[in-house]
Amino acid sequence: MDISEVELIKRIRDLSRPLQKKALVGIGDDAAVIEGREGYSYLLTTDTLVENVHFEWIFTHPHQLGWKAMAACTSDIAAMGGYPVFALVTLGVSTEAVFSTVKQIYEGMLDLSSRMDVEVSGGDIVRSPIFFISISVLGEVEAGRAILRKGASVGDSIYVTGEIGAAAAGLLFLKQSKILSVSSNKEKAVEKWLMPFPRIKEAREILKTGFATAMIDISDGLSSDLCHILEESKVGAEIWEEKIPLSFETQKLCDVLKKSAVEVALQ
Amino acid sequence: MDISEVELIKRIRDLSRPLQKKALVGIGDDAAVIEGREGYSYLLTTDTLVENVHFEWIFTHPHQLGWKAMAACTSDIAAMGGYPVFALVTLGVSTEAVFSTVKQIYEGMLDLSSRMDVEVSGGDIVRSPIFFISISVLGEVEAGRAILRKGASVGDSIYVTGEIGAAAAGLLFLKQSKILSVSSNKEKAVEKWLMPFPRIKEAREILKTGFATAMIDISDGLSSDLCHILEESKVGAEIWEEKIPLSFETQKLCDVLKKSAVEVALQ
Repeated sequence: MDISEVELIKRIRDLSRPLQKKALVGIGDDAAVIEGREGYSYLLTTDTLVENVHFEWIFTHPHQLGWKAMAACTSDIAAMGGYPVFALVTLGVSTEAVFSTVKQIYEGMLDLSSRMDVEVSGGDIVRSPIFFISISVLGEVEAGRAILRKGASVGDSIYVTGEIGAAAAGLLFLKQSKILSVSSNKEKAVEKWLMPFPRIKEAREILKTGFATAMIDISDGLSSDLCHILEESKVGAEIWEEKIPLSFETQKLCDVLKKSAVEVALQ
Repeated sequence: MDISEVELIKRIRDLSRPLQKKALVGIGDDAAVIEGREGYSYLLTTDTLVENVHFEWIFTHPHQLGWKAMAACTSDIAAMGGYPVFALVTLGVSTEAVFSTVKQIYEGMLDLSSRMDVEVSGGDIVRSPIFFISISVLGEVEAGRAILRKGASVGDSIYVTGEIGAAAAGLLFLKQSKILSVSSNKEKAVEKWLMPFPRIKEAREILKTGFATAMIDISDGLSSDLCHILEESKVGAEIWEEKIPLSFETQKLCDVLKKSAVEVALQ
């Protein structure tokens, strides 16, 4: 590509923006916000995982892939304070694939979606030289209550809903080891990376308190995702290294990897 | 693949079906139907085009690709009697691609979406070894008025909204010629295949008459798509060859291709 990915997305957004009049919140947040059934706004978002770009078969079980794809897009709904309701699932399937692989991907996806009471109400299976899975989700939030990226003000405090860094450490471990014979601390971190559970309950509790002014899901790392809030809210932030909540497992795994746990969590 | 595509889709549907309780109409029609803003149902559908499977760069301009991808999924909304409102667009971009190509794809897509007053309210650009474009669309239809595949009864007549076969003939011509130096009749057919215009206005007029009991968009050919209506409605059909509306251009192009125009239209 002759320009960076960030620059590409920025330019494409600029192409689409002038045409946005009907959405309550358009491109630029975790999900778009539109008018929903009485008393609700609907949230729309989509996420895609591509073979050898976002996942590698060498350390991803088809069940985990389906789960992870469903987790990625429903997490964007949680980041708005809402809960996912419907999903459209598109699977690009290589011609050499066997049915059992495709079935396992769907089972992994349905394993997570059924736990969240999300209904797969459509989609497509297409032939493709490489595997990819693209899921669009429609979620709900009480009308006017979606928590946006742009609501942060000077003086606000920054919180995370759990210990961070485990997923990133798990990925690093997988990349270094290229095998799945993991145990104890490593296993937990790897599972966090492969099979994260979207923080919908946590997000709904936060919404009920009315306490949060801005929200985002951390998928790229604390610092890069915090930056999205800062940009949209036009504010700055200070983070104290010692206050970043890192789990014991993450720290131990980072010791093995000879990495700073804080840096792994911040990315 | 160890099973056919039709069988694969059937089996996957069987996996998802038991979980469908909230959609008014779930998997199995052109689009899912869910509760929408007051007085409306929302329609959800998605469609994907993959490089070397659904299109080839040798005879597809990036602008045409964007247009066609937007046409494919909005046509599913028209097939329910509705109109498209919002779209989420995911583009898989090969690493060798230049910005101008990506820009042209988006411009083609926005060219059509702006004519239909459809808002692109989100999406993603992802790296991928091959190009693909996946669009999810949310449409609207007056509550309870969506025209389904399952509504046909014995004694109903079968209508199409225009002359058919041109797109299929255009594709055949492209496959045989592998060049774009086309003119007159060929050009019109090729354009029908590359840049179809979704029949939203026609579908809306049909809905207003209250005349149609079942509806579908013909994307695969008259006979195969009619079969979907027949299956869902549990009826049979008779078609008179001489009553199939074929344009003069389609007939002339099929003469050149040495194909039966009726067979091309029926597929």
